[in-house]
Amino acid sequence: MRPGVTPINAGASGRESAGHSPKTRHREILQTAARLICQDGYEATSIQRIAEACGLTKAGLYHHIRSKEHLLLEIMNYGMDVFEEQVLSQVLPIADPVERLKTCMDKHVRLVTRGRDKEITIILHEHATLTGDAQAQINARKKRYVRFLESSFTEAVRDGRIRPINPKVAAFAFLGMVNWIYKWFRRDGAVPEEQLAREMQDLLFGGLERGPR
Amino acid sequence: MRPGVTPINAGASGRESAGHSPKTRHREILQTAARLICQDGYEATSIQRIAEACGLTKAGLYHHIRSKEHLLLEIMNYGMDVFEEQVLSQVLPIADPVERLKTCMDKHVRLVTRGRDKEITIILHEHATLTGDAQAQINARKKRYVRFLESSFTEAVRDGRIRPINPKVAAFAFLGMVNWIYKWFRRDGAVPEEQLAREMQDLLFGGLERGPR
Repeated sequence: MRPGVTPINAGASGRESAGHSPKTRHREILQTAARLICQDGYEATSIQRIAEACGLTKAGLYHHIRSKEHLLLEIMNYGMDVFEEQVLSQVLPIADPVERLKTCMDKHVRLVTRGRDKEITIILHEHATLTGDAQAQINARKKRYVRFLESSFTEAVRDGRIRPINPKVAAFAFLGMVNWIYKWFRRDGAVPEEQLAREMQDLLFGGLERGPR
Repeated sequence: MRPGVTPINAGASGRESAGHSPKTRHREILQTAARLICQDGYEATSIQRIAEACGLTKAGLYHHIRSKEHLLLEIMNYGMDVFEEQVLSQVLPIADPVERLKTCMDKHVRLVTRGRDKEITIILHEHATLTGDAQAQINARKKRYVRFLESSFTEAVRDGRIRPINPKVAAFAFLGMVNWIYKWFRRDGAVPEEQLAREMQDLLFGGLERGPR
């Protein structure tokens, strides 16, 4: 995707360019809009600006989206889709609660460091611009993850796999550690990408586990 | 402070109301502006709106501030002042690196949960609207804290007080855990305020320490 560089040949009709499925094109629009909103803020990013960056006219863009607020909702839902597909659904089947949590941390860290969709992560965490039902929808999806972490920690304590800790605080400590990464981590920085997940697992779980590792 | 409720008798001259020192009044303006920016975003918050909420005319407000961007810089510098006064300067003299880090976590957690100046915390972390020298100034103050944490972890490993970990990852894990609190913690929620700092200390340091506690 090279948004705003080579406008794709799509006029007011919103016709798709060759080789782009409607689904791919829609995702590109979400990614481009996310990048702009991240850069300039939601209020300061006009529909006109998003259309230009997508190589569309304003009317062409409205062929793909319903409204600016609905676009933001779609970006956030897309972010949650990516997260649930690449992290949550992968670890739910793991029987052992500590292995489940550690694998979850590994996959979540990699999702954040891999850089793709970074803007979507930022929007999910920083811009509470949604209101009403849209906000409730996204919050419910976020809460599902918190509950998953909390119940996994509860299970790990109950089974004697980790020493007794407050599962709610542990869940949010986990989230804070991982969700903070996009604020400081650079792929060319002092911490190699492939070490980060292991270091974080060790910091949180290294001192909690009781059973054989 | 009851911003926007009872307009203080200050006209276009920007004269102070009785009982308010210029310093107090200035701080109130920063707090009121921070609350509005947090609520509606920096772009959407006009100088006119800030003036009204402070019970001032626009001209009256300009008696206290230089520009909207400079106001944002002042809010961020005020946030860093509060943090350095109540956290960093309190723990710098502690000789033992682990005690220093644990006390730092306790004081930082309490600063976030106590609720006062919560908006300033959010602005410091979420709104990268500053540019140029102003941004560099705030980033330098934030980096000072990161370096303090990192060097304390380095010292703790070197002295054999904690097991070997990557000090940089540990510093940002500490920051992530604590800076994430404002996103989920409620004073009337399931985790009592007085327990939170202790639980977090235990999660991060409980599994790291080697020496006698």
